Amino acid sequence: MSRTLTSTPAADGFHVPSELGPHAGCWMLWPERPDNWRRRALPAQLAFAAVARAIARFEPVTVGASAGQYRRARASLPPAVRVLEISSDDAWMRDVGPTFLVDAQARTRGVQWRFNAWGGLYEDYALDADVAQKVLELAGCERYCAPLVTEGGAIHVDGQGTALVTEQSLLDPRRNPGLDRGRVQRLLERYLGVSRVIWLGEGVVEDETAGHIDNLACFARPGEVCLTWTEDVRDPQRRVCAAALERLLEARDARGRRLRVHRIPSPGPLYLTWREARGILPRPGIRALRPGRRLAASYINFYAPNGALLMPLLDTRTDAAARRALQHVFPRRRIIGVPAAREILLGGGNLHCITQQQPLASGRS
Amino acid sequence: MSRTLTSTPAADGFHVPSELGPHAGCWMLWPERPDNWRRRALPAQLAFAAVARAIARFEPVTVGASAGQYRRARASLPPAVRVLEISSDDAWMRDVGPTFLVDAQARTRGVQWRFNAWGGLYEDYALDADVAQKVLELAGCERYCAPLVTEGGAIHVDGQGTALVTEQSLLDPRRNPGLDRGRVQRLLERYLGVSRVIWLGEGVVEDETAGHIDNLACFARPGEVCLTWTEDVRDPQRRVCAAALERLLEARDARGRRLRVHRIPSPGPLYLTWREARGILPRPGIRALRPGRRLAASYINFYAPNGALLMPLLDTRTDAAARRALQHVFPRRRIIGVPAAREILLGGGNLHCITQQQPLASGRS
Repeated sequence: MSRTLTSTPAADGFHVPSELGPHAGCWMLWPERPDNWRRRALPAQLAFAAVARAIARFEPVTVGASAGQYRRARASLPPAVRVLEISSDDAWMRDVGPTFLVDAQARTRGVQWRFNAWGGLYEDYALDADVAQKVLELAGCERYCAPLVTEGGAIHVDGQGTALVTEQSLLDPRRNPGLDRGRVQRLLERYLGVSRVIWLGEGVVEDETAGHIDNLACFARPGEVCLTWTEDVRDPQRRVCAAALERLLEARDARGRRLRVHRIPSPGPLYLTWREARGILPRPGIRALRPGRRLAASYINFYAPNGALLMPLLDTRTDAAARRALQHVFPRRRIIGVPAAREILLGGGNLHCITQQQPLASGRS
Repeated sequence: MSRTLTSTPAADGFHVPSELGPHAGCWMLWPERPDNWRRRALPAQLAFAAVARAIARFEPVTVGASAGQYRRARASLPPAVRVLEISSDDAWMRDVGPTFLVDAQARTRGVQWRFNAWGGLYEDYALDADVAQKVLELAGCERYCAPLVTEGGAIHVDGQGTALVTEQSLLDPRRNPGLDRGRVQRLLERYLGVSRVIWLGEGVVEDETAGHIDNLACFARPGEVCLTWTEDVRDPQRRVCAAALERLLEARDARGRRLRVHRIPSPGPLYLTWREARGILPRPGIRALRPGRRLAASYINFYAPNGALLMPLLDTRTDAAARRALQHVFPRRRIIGVPAAREILLGGGNLHCITQQQPLASGRS
C-alpha cells in the first residue's frame, strides 16, 4: 500500500500545496508524556480534544493514540473524530507526520523527513520517527524518504514554488551536521517541489524547536506573508522580528513577486508560572521546565481548516488585536479562538504544531 | 466515523454474508506473546507473514501490530500488505475482530461481540477486547455492540439466513452464565441477521476455544456443509464427528433445505512435541503447554480469499486426501497448501482463526 519511492517529488511532478488550500482532513496525535505535559497530560488532553472537536466542524479529523491511551482518547473525543492507534513519543503531528504532496493528476503522496527529536531534545524517539510512515500507510499514500533531518514545522510553502524556512532550524548542526546551505536548499527544492527558498535567520526566542518557521511567519497566500511582530524594543523578540521583516522585504518569490508582509501582534512576553511548572514530572535528559521560563508564544501558530482559522488565545492584552489582524488577512475565514491554547504552549508548541493537514488533491496546481 | 448503533442488524436490514462471497480484503494481527508462541513468537511471525503474503496475491491484506512490533512486522511483510498499529493480547483476528455485515444498499457495518478471552483463557484481554472497534473505525464502518460473549470463530453462516454454531461454545457457562439457549439464539438471529440457527454439540477435542465451529464444520455454500471427519473409532474425535453429522443430517436451513455434508478427512491425531513445548515461556495463570498434548488440528480451519482457498498442511499422511476433498467441494478455487500451518496450530488455531474477511458489499443479498 504505502510503497516507498526512490525518486524525488520534483522529478515526479509533485509539490507541497498551500496549507490554505482545500483539505481532505486533519491528522493529530494524543498527548501523554508526563515529563512534558503537566499533571500527567490530563489538561493537555482536554486541550487537544477541544482542538480536534473544533476542527471536526470543518473537516474530518483523525487522532492517533497509543494502545494504553486508546480508550481514554476514544472516550474524550466525539464519534465524528476518528481515533486510531498511532503511538508517538510526543504528540507533535506537524513535526513527526508526513508532509503531503499533490500532482496535476490529483494524486497525493507524502514526504517522510528524518527525525532526531529536534536535534536531540529527547533521547528516545523511535515511535515519533515512524509516525509519518504510519500516517501515509493509513492514508494510502506512496512515500518519499528525504535524506534530511527536519520537521514539518520547519517549512512553509506558498504552493506556487516558494518555500519559507529559517537558517536556525534548517542549518542546525545538531540536525544535519554534514550538509551545507546549498545542499539543504537543493533537498528542499527536490522534496517540496519548489524552485525558490526564502531563508529567514532566527525563529521566535526560546523556541525549543530551534527556530521553526511555523511560530514566526507563514504564507497567507502567494505573495503575502504573516509575521509575528512586536513594537517593544526592550523585548529580544523585537530584533528577530525586525531581521525577519528585512529579509522578507528583500525577497522575491518563485514567480519573481515581492512579498507583502502582514504584521501580527505578538502576545506577551509570557512566562511559565510556578503552578504550571510544578505539575511537570522531571526526568533526567529531558529539558528542564523551570518557573519563569519564557514561552515561545505566537499567533502565527494557527491552524486553518476548510473555511475557518483556529487561532490560539494567549494573552487578553493582545488576543483581540491579533484576531482583528488575522481576520483582516483572511476576510473569508471564520476565526475561532481556542482558549486551551496556553496548555498546548506549555508543552512547547501550539495549534499548528499539533496538526497536519492532508490536502484535497484537485489536479489544479 | 465508527458510530455505535443502538438498534440491531436484523432490525436495520443487515446480515452477515457468506465468507465465500467476494471480499474487500482481509484483516490479520501480528503474534508476539512468548507464553503462547514458542521461541518468542519468531517462527509464528514467519508463519503469519507467509499467510499474509499468500492472501495478498488474491485480495488486500491489513496486518495489525503493536507499537513495539511495528518495525519488525513492517520489515517482514511485503509493501503490498498494509501494516498498521493495532495492539492485541494475542493474534486471533477471527475471534477478536468484528463480524462484518452487509445490506441491500451495499453498505458494510460490523458487530463487536463481548470478549472475555474464550471464557477466561487469559486474565488480561483489554487489548483484544478493543480490536473489533479499532478495525471498524479503520474500515469506516458503523458498529453494533452485541450483548453476547462470543468470538468470530464460534459462528458460521450460509449468507441466506442460516447460522451454524456449537452448544459447547455458545452455551459455555464461562462466557454467558446468565443466558439460556433461547436467549442466545435470539441474539444470534438479531446480530447475524439470520432466521435459523443449527446447533451442533461439541467441537473438536482439546480445542482451547471450547468448541469453536470454525475447527469442526463450515458452509461450503448454501445447503452444503464441510465437516471434519475421521473413520478411526478409537479416536475420541470420532464420537464428536458422528454426533455432528447426525445433527447436520437432521437439520433444515432457513430456506427449508436439507444439508449435503462433505466429510473432510482429519489429520492426525497430532501431538505437541517436547521440542516444540520447550520453546514456550510458561507464565502463571496461562494454559500449560506440555509435550504430548493433543493439538486441535483440522483442515476445516482454512481461509478462502477471492478465487482461492488456503488450506493448512498438517500431516503428510492426510494432506493430499484433504486437498482432493476440498478441491472437489470448491472446484473453481485454487487450493494453496500452507506448510507453516503447524506453527499456527501450536498457538491454538489455524488459518481461519488468524484471519477475518471484510466482505465486498454488492447490494445483492
